[in-house]
Amino acid sequence: MTSGANDKILLAVTGWDPEVWQTEFAKAAPGRKLVLDANTDKEKIRYALVWKQRQGSLAGLPNLEVIFSLGAGVDHVFHDQQIPDVPIVRIVSPDLTMRMSEYVVWQVLDHQRLGLRYREQQRQRVWREDRRQPAAHEVTVGILGLGVLGRDAAQKLRMLGFRVSGWSRRLQTIEGVTTYFGKDGLRDFLKDVDIVVCLLPLTPDTKGILSMTMFAQMKAEGPLGAPTLINAGRGGLQNEPDILAALDRGMLSVVTLDVFNKEPLPKDSPLWTHPQVMLTPHAAASSSPQALVPEIVAQIESYERGEPLKNIVDRAAQY
Amino acid sequence: MTSGANDKILLAVTGWDPEVWQTEFAKAAPGRKLVLDANTDKEKIRYALVWKQRQGSLAGLPNLEVIFSLGAGVDHVFHDQQIPDVPIVRIVSPDLTMRMSEYVVWQVLDHQRLGLRYREQQRQRVWREDRRQPAAHEVTVGILGLGVLGRDAAQKLRMLGFRVSGWSRRLQTIEGVTTYFGKDGLRDFLKDVDIVVCLLPLTPDTKGILSMTMFAQMKAEGPLGAPTLINAGRGGLQNEPDILAALDRGMLSVVTLDVFNKEPLPKDSPLWTHPQVMLTPHAAASSSPQALVPEIVAQIESYERGEPLKNIVDRAAQY
Repeated sequence: MTSGANDKILLAVTGWDPEVWQTEFAKAAPGRKLVLDANTDKEKIRYALVWKQRQGSLAGLPNLEVIFSLGAGVDHVFHDQQIPDVPIVRIVSPDLTMRMSEYVVWQVLDHQRLGLRYREQQRQRVWREDRRQPAAHEVTVGILGLGVLGRDAAQKLRMLGFRVSGWSRRLQTIEGVTTYFGKDGLRDFLKDVDIVVCLLPLTPDTKGILSMTMFAQMKAEGPLGAPTLINAGRGGLQNEPDILAALDRGMLSVVTLDVFNKEPLPKDSPLWTHPQVMLTPHAAASSSPQALVPEIVAQIESYERGEPLKNIVDRAAQY
Repeated sequence: MTSGANDKILLAVTGWDPEVWQTEFAKAAPGRKLVLDANTDKEKIRYALVWKQRQGSLAGLPNLEVIFSLGAGVDHVFHDQQIPDVPIVRIVSPDLTMRMSEYVVWQVLDHQRLGLRYREQQRQRVWREDRRQPAAHEVTVGILGLGVLGRDAAQKLRMLGFRVSGWSRRLQTIEGVTTYFGKDGLRDFLKDVDIVVCLLPLTPDTKGILSMTMFAQMKAEGPLGAPTLINAGRGGLQNEPDILAALDRGMLSVVTLDVFNKEPLPKDSPLWTHPQVMLTPHAAASSSPQALVPEIVAQIESYERGEPLKNIVDRAAQY
């Protein structure tokens, strides 16, 4: 656990420009070396920072001690079948948490305050106040997933006056929030929700959970009409044909999606043009190298002082 | 100050359907009589509930004791040159305050999170994350007007992580908020603001304050580009040609307007179609009879128990 001058850190990312990460790393930890390729100095690599690493790119590193995920979710790590048996640490960053709550609050308010309708009225030059604009305390926002992100969003929504409920795999308690858990709890949770916010991790258990089966269990009519869905978790959580069918059958009124089955969203996806869909390009809570690198360096330093690693991923649950 | 069985309450409104107010009043105070016309029983009227009352409609009521404004602003009361010399009480309602803060937070987030841009990208089927999306703590939201509404919005924006400043005619202090006051303070306030939220009362001093003179004092460039303006106060606060000119010269980047010089906004106003303008039909914080009537009845009852009236308007300042 002592730091050697020749230690190296592997940056194993795909789909991202590594340069900005390298720049920030050089600033935050000038004495450490960040490499993009493990092959030259396999035995010198003690840590890996990963985002959708290539299959097998972490295999055969004899001295690897910790894998740090560069995103809040870690499903991208498990795509790789050859992950060494070392701790995987998820990012829990105030920056990411703040950004995700901004996004959730923004979209919840956009639905509650009838943003789609008012923007359409503006296009048509129609001046008409919509009397369906309910007060926050008349609207129940239900959060799927009560990890760090879900809990923070729940508290902020509460503070704005919304009724908030939450569901998670295991029982969680949050002051002022009605919580449900497990399969049975999900049914009860869905019966009483006007706006569903999905912040679940993508695991074998949650894949495709946002489907017709779920939509059929939601209450049909609330102060905003049919329920609204916001998915800022992972695209793999949603069944996109089911979402479109539920919108067209009036089972969902409006949907906000930040994530998709395939990203970038293909040009021919009907989601782009559906009048009740608001979409953003996986931008709800992006990993900012400026914010995250100093936090990872601090984690490495505390680990090297002998302190326990925080936010270790449960390999069995895959989150 | 004793309540007589024959006492009447005058509902003096124009532009609103009085029926829903009558219905709510009958529920909240079944023993009291609400009349729409003062002429039949002038001497029996002790209270008036008003919204843009007709000129002179409150004159010649010998026993009128209190005027209750049915909106948060009271400029609509002062349009009448013949207001009797009795206390005018403004509405300070948790319902109105919550709704206004919802609106302000919604629109601030829509600007910070680049709503206009992402909606335009969706229309064009463009998948591109905009790197200008700054974190809340990089954005200063400045609130013009630190009454009950401004203070509540300031606290909620703070809780979401924004830097918040505020300006008012007289010095106010709010924890965690940088406050400015008076004419000199306004200059300093404007120099450091990325998103200006106007919640000022409309008075002879504030008429047309949102003008080129003000826009020219704002900083030219912030994390979101040029400053953004949100006016949810009164239309009379803004110079609409100046707002359009400032948008076209790049002095303002985006504008949200809930209020207008003339309402309903005329069909030929260029504001309807300007790509950097988001507008709503004076719907930011509407007086809800269901929420407000019980609060007014409670005020009347506490007044009749001999307690002092709260939220009395300063006639000299007209707010």
